[in-house]
Amino acid sequence: MSGLLIRQAGDEDLEAIIRLHEEDELGSHGDAWTPENRPAYEAAFEAITHSSDNELFVAVTGDEVVGTFQLTFIPNLTGRGALRVKVESVKVKAARRSQGIGAKMMEFAEKYARTRGAAMLELSSNKTRTNAHRFYERLGFARSHEGFKKRL
Amino acid sequence: MSGLLIRQAGDEDLEAIIRLHEEDELGSHGDAWTPENRPAYEAAFEAITHSSDNELFVAVTGDEVVGTFQLTFIPNLTGRGALRVKVESVKVKAARRSQGIGAKMMEFAEKYARTRGAAMLELSSNKTRTNAHRFYERLGFARSHEGFKKRL
Repeated sequence: MSGLLIRQAGDEDLEAIIRLHEEDELGSHGDAWTPENRPAYEAAFEAITHSSDNELFVAVTGDEVVGTFQLTFIPNLTGRGALRVKVESVKVKAARRSQGIGAKMMEFAEKYARTRGAAMLELSSNKTRTNAHRFYERLGFARSHEGFKKRL
Repeated sequence: MSGLLIRQAGDEDLEAIIRLHEEDELGSHGDAWTPENRPAYEAAFEAITHSSDNELFVAVTGDEVVGTFQLTFIPNLTGRGALRVKVESVKVKAARRSQGIGAKMMEFAEKYARTRGAAMLELSSNKTRTNAHRFYERLGFARSHEGFKKRL
């Protein structure tokens, strides 16, 4: 994909990012850009941008947001105090899949993590997303862990 | 286990925490409290305690540190902007296992996460730790995700 720009997300990208979440039925988080939900998204966006441990990115072609992901930097004692980076909420616009956008985003994430001195990149992916698992394994990720979640 | 206290870790706990990491051969992160490693642990400890998104805890009986875990608060857009909490580096002293310390730590983690308004508790556990997986499932966690890691 030529002309793909990856940059930090701004306020003006929030609706487009949530539209990418809307397309995702597997995650079943019920995300939708509605008047009722908007204040919650705006508050979460502000929390992300104010956190020095989190960065939210968009992938853009022209003025179209075609992908998004979040990086969380986690200082940790394990591995002689190795900084970890968790990749979160990776989404590519449905109509733009299989064009290499996801790979470019992950390449960017890896470079960015190295720049910040991280020793490990990690993520978890719903067990039903078998295409995504093959994708991450192709990129050199080891499927070494079980991911557990508990709703509170 | 009566007399178990769970509290935020201080500088004075760092060696005892790393000793718990040392006991863990499965993770194979090569952690050991040595003069060469000490500055890296001290720097990571400082990064954790200075991060408003991270909290490091110890479980203590008398003056003995018998357990540790870290909580990472992750602001996120998914799920209408639901705050997530990642539980990280859960360790119980080998000689004190099967005494309910882990369950007390996770109960504390869950309450603490609720207090901060979190909607989701999550963690990943090496696929070889089958006892830990049963433990988390007993506590109501769903093993819904695959966990991927890539060393940088």
